[in-house]
Parts: sequence; C-alpha cells; structure tokens
Amino acid sequence: MRITALGFTLAAILVATAAGADTLSVAEVGSFHVGGRPVSLSGLPTRDVVFTAGSAPIKVDPNGDFEVEQMYVQYVKLAKPKARYPLLLWHGGGLTGVTWETKPDGKPGWQLFFLRAGHDVYVSDAVERGRASWARYPEVFQGEPLFRTKKQAWEDFRIGAPGSYKLSATERTALPGQLFPVDAFDQFMKQGVPRWSTTDAQIQAAYHQLVQKVCPCVIVVHSQSGNFGFNAALTAPDKVKALIAIEPSGAPKPEVAAAGTLKGVPHLVVWGDFIAQSPVWTRFVPASKGYADALRAAGGTADWWDLPKMGVAGNTHMLMMDKNSDQIAGMIQKWMAEKGLMH
Amino acid sequence: MRITALGFTLAAILVATAAGADTLSVAEVGSFHVGGRPVSLSGLPTRDVVFTAGSAPIKVDPNGDFEVEQMYVQYVKLAKPKARYPLLLWHGGGLTGVTWETKPDGKPGWQLFFLRAGHDVYVSDAVERGRASWARYPEVFQGEPLFRTKKQAWEDFRIGAPGSYKLSATERTALPGQLFPVDAFDQFMKQGVPRWSTTDAQIQAAYHQLVQKVCPCVIVVHSQSGNFGFNAALTAPDKVKALIAIEPSGAPKPEVAAAGTLKGVPHLVVWGDFIAQSPVWTRFVPASKGYADALRAAGGTADWWDLPKMGVAGNTHMLMMDKNSDQIAGMIQKWMAEKGLMH
Repeated sequence: MRITALGFTLAAILVATAAGADTLSVAEVGSFHVGGRPVSLSGLPTRDVVFTAGSAPIKVDPNGDFEVEQMYVQYVKLAKPKARYPLLLWHGGGLTGVTWETKPDGKPGWQLFFLRAGHDVYVSDAVERGRASWARYPEVFQGEPLFRTKKQAWEDFRIGAPGSYKLSATERTALPGQLFPVDAFDQFMKQGVPRWSTTDAQIQAAYHQLVQKVCPCVIVVHSQSGNFGFNAALTAPDKVKALIAIEPSGAPKPEVAAAGTLKGVPHLVVWGDFIAQSPVWTRFVPASKGYADALRAAGGTADWWDLPKMGVAGNTHMLMMDKNSDQIAGMIQKWMAEKGLMH
Repeated sequence: MRITALGFTLAAILVATAAGADTLSVAEVGSFHVGGRPVSLSGLPTRDVVFTAGSAPIKVDPNGDFEVEQMYVQYVKLAKPKARYPLLLWHGGGLTGVTWETKPDGKPGWQLFFLRAGHDVYVSDAVERGRASWARYPEVFQGEPLFRTKKQAWEDFRIGAPGSYKLSATERTALPGQLFPVDAFDQFMKQGVPRWSTTDAQIQAAYHQLVQKVCPCVIVVHSQSGNFGFNAALTAPDKVKALIAIEPSGAPKPEVAAAGTLKGVPHLVVWGDFIAQSPVWTRFVPASKGYADALRAAGGTADWWDLPKMGVAGNTHMLMMDKNSDQIAGMIQKWMAEKGLMH
C-alpha cells in the first residue's frame, strides 16, 4: 500500500509537470448574446451598392427586421473553480472585453490572471461595442458614433500629461514614473471601438439581463462601466456578491446608497496615479467618492484604494495593462479572499 | 514495480474522473490585434454632442490620429495539442468569430469541438467586424455599412425557401428536413454585425499578416472568407498546411490554381443541402467548383463534399450551427487525420 501511495504521488507530480504549472483545467469555453429587442424598419430608400470594384451597382433595400441592443458575453468555466462565484469583467467606454485579455504588449491580462486564481471568468462587450454589434443610426441609435483619438487616449488615460501627445511615438513624453507599456500604445489603440453617447439606458438594460442570467457573481467594472455596475448591484443586491470598481467615471447619487440596500454587497474602488494632474479625472472622482462615503455611512463596505497613498505609484487609467497589472490583480484577489468570496 | 505501475494507472484514472471526461488542459487563453495602419484625419467640422440626456451639448472634434483596418484574433492553446498545427476559424460576411463559439441554441460549437479534438484554436474577427473595430466613413471606409435583415438570413442561408420569411417566428416555414435550430433563429440574428462591400483588400491584407504571425496552420473558412482563405493559401503555401472551405461564396480564377503552387496544400470544400432551391447559392457554387477542379488537374488535392450525395441531408449555410454540427465536424476531423495533420 505504501508503494501504491508513492505511485499516486509520483503520478500526480508527473501529470502536473507534463501539463505545466500554469495549466488550467477548463470545463467549457463558450459565449452568448443577451438582452436587446427586435426592431422593424420601413420607408427607407433603396441604395445602389457596388459590391466588387468595377462591377455594376446592385440595389440594396435597407428595410426589414433586425435584432438590436443585445450584448455579447464570453466565458471560460473551470473544472474546479476555487472562487465561490463567477467573476464578470465589464469594460470601459470606447473599448470592448479585449481590455481584460492579453495586454497590448503581449503579456497576460486579468482574464488569465483571475482564471489562474481559480475564478470562472465572463468577459463581455457592452451594447454597440465589439461583438455586441451596433445598429443603424439615426433610425435605431440616436446621434452619431464617436471615435476616440490617440491624443484623447494618451492624455485622458493619464499616460502623458495634457498637451504631451505627438503623432510620432518617439516624440511623445509620458508622465514620469507612469507604468503603461508606451511602446505598445499604438497597438493598444487598435483595441478601440466607436461609441455612442446616447445608449446608456440600452447598455444598462442588457447588463441587468446579464446579471439575471449568470449571477450570483462578483463584478469588476472599469471607467464607463462603473456606473452600470453600481446600478446593477442596486438592482440585484442578492445576486451581486461584490463590486470592484476600477477608476469608475461616474456613480449614482449618494442618496441612493444611503438606503442600505447594499449592506451585504462589499464595494472596492481603486484609483491609479496622476489624478491631480488630469482635469478629466479630477472632475470624475467626486461622484464615486460621494457614493462610497454614503454607502459606508449606511453600514456598508466601500473600501477606497488610492494606490499612490498605499505605496503603489505610476498607475494610469488602464491599470489592468500597466506593467504592475499582476500586482494590482493580486491585491484585488487578496481583497476577495478576505471578503469570503473564495472557497 | 508492478504495484507502482498500478498506482500510476489508478492515479491517472482518478485525475481524469475528477476533472471530467471533457476537461481541457489549457496552457493559455489570449488575444491580439494584427494588421491595420495609422491614419490621421483633419479638416472635419467639430460637432455638438449631448452626452447625458438633458445636459448641455459638448463640442467634439473628430480630427486626430487613429489606428484602422486591424483584425482581432483570440486563441485557446492546449497544454498538449494532438494536432500538428493550430486551427484557424475564419467567419463569413456580416458575422464575427462568434460563428464558431457556442451555437445560438446554447449547444457547443466548433471552437469547443476542435479544442476537445486536440487542436489549438484561433477564432478571429475580420477587419471592420466585431472586436476588430470599424473606421469612420466615408473618410476611411468607402460607402456605407450594410445591415443584413432577418429575411435575407432566413432565405439566403437556406433555412427557409425564398419568400418564406415572416416577422412572426411561429409563421415562418422552414425547408422540410432542414437542420438549423429554428427556435434559435432570432437569437442567431443577434450575432450579426454590419459590413461594408468595399473592404475586401483591407480584410485580405490583415489575414495575410495573421498567417505570417501564427502559421504553419490549418485554416477553416466559411462563406465570404472562402476567397480570403484560398488567397491566403496561394500567398503562403508553405504556411497553410490545409484549407477547409465551408460553403465558400467565391474563389480565385481557376487559372490561379493551375500553376501547381498548391500541390502540397490539401483542400476540402463542403456543401450543405438545398443548393438547387437557392438562386444565390446556385450562382455562387461554380466559382469554387472551377477552382477545385483546376487545383485537382494541377496535381493537388481538392476534395469536394456534396453532403446530401454522401447521405447527410438537411444542412443549411450555417452548418456549424445545424443540429448535426458535431457530425460534420467529426467528418472534417477524420479528413484532417487522414491528411496527416494530427500527431
């Protein structure tokens, strides 16, 4: 029996070695669309479209029936998750779920980090972004799409100070000590997608449906999705087991948190560096500050991480892509464990 | 020693059982963008944009620097792939890589099938589709986006005969014996994305860059990507180890195949049912037929599967979503093994 036990041990070691220390045991990889509504368009004029250069135009009738305003969700489910609930990663404005995948410099992103930490991970694209698709405007969406420029991303994401952006990568001056992989900045810009400024209600509605479909869960939000996440927790406090807001660009009014609905939903708000040097973020921070304070006053948990004050300097708005992204993810993982969210 | 060996066997069985028979040992999940180019726009007028309903409009300057015409690629790499090369899955027109993921009825798609069969699988979104993002028009893309109607999908994908589409799901009559999960048709339409008719060159260029980045490989193409895949093999016959074309909507001229460049690249072309009842597909089939015939005449391999003639009836254009999708994938898997593409 002793020899058999030894055999077991040896076999276990060999299996682990063959597969590699970081190998994931994955039960399922998959995706779905959720939310949205059917819409029928009529009365639009037909158009002449040239499908192949040089060939005669073909009449295209844009009228008909469509599905619009759904969102896209992709998941990796582990064979043996160590987390009690799946982890949902919600991206910010003008971006998609790609935010959480491999970083623009080719290094592993938070999707892989949290899979390796034992979470089932759901990465989604909000309504009108990426694989969620987008709908005809102005017939379905109001207004026109907005395309983020490199200058906006460079300066608003606090990689460089306002006014420091240049077209030439070699002429751009980054903030001293900042941690975004600047050599991969143009590569990062390939991840950007157009956005509308008029679709908040549709985005929020699809997120609510996502929560109903896959939660109980823990949600990590970033930037524009901060507000969507806070509202998701308020709407389904029984299903959202924790909310981790990475640099949320907005929040509901403090009065909403004061009701105490969220006493059982621990919140964590995380901020990077250089906030005082950014007019945009100086303006955005107070909303979630007021919300977190109200939540705490109502007896809830709202931890507020000002990373530089905690000795972690140099983080930009895209801290899941910064050079210390694993360190930040590790701190968040520890917070989740302390909140009883791991088995 | 005999007892130790028994221990090994027992441990191996226990490991397999604990993880579940279908558990994947995954080395890495990740993504990247490839191809594209920087573009700078100037001289466009600023616009007034209302970001929050009821608030004052904010001036938006659309001029600036952007990245455009890249494509998006997502991969799952196995710890121990059984296939000799990664498998690339390229989607058709007005769709994204979602084509290959979980089917609209919630059942496993070909991505998971081929992962379980031992392939590293790369699922991509072509230029201007899904997570590849899209660019301003008419300044970058020519012409306007096209949105596929439910009627077009229902009839052109041979779920129902021409003229059979109705808005009401219960009033739609499907082709007798067809295998698309019709209850999930509206859900399927949520996967659709707008497309341009003017971006073939940009799409092809990005696919060429993808091949240079990740191949040697085996490529599975569908519908619009048929032509892109044939051209990819012609351009890099040393890197494309086999091409599997699922209902390709086009192909290069037969003369191109006659040169014999592709002697070492086995091709397989697969067709579903009801072709004769579809004006669209009756018109599209001859291009790849002529190409495959020329390839064969030049000494290459170009297997031509007319599924109904092989006793497999009922497949629509979306045969990776049809109820017998696993059967078709299994036949393709067997073909790949016969062609020496598995270890």
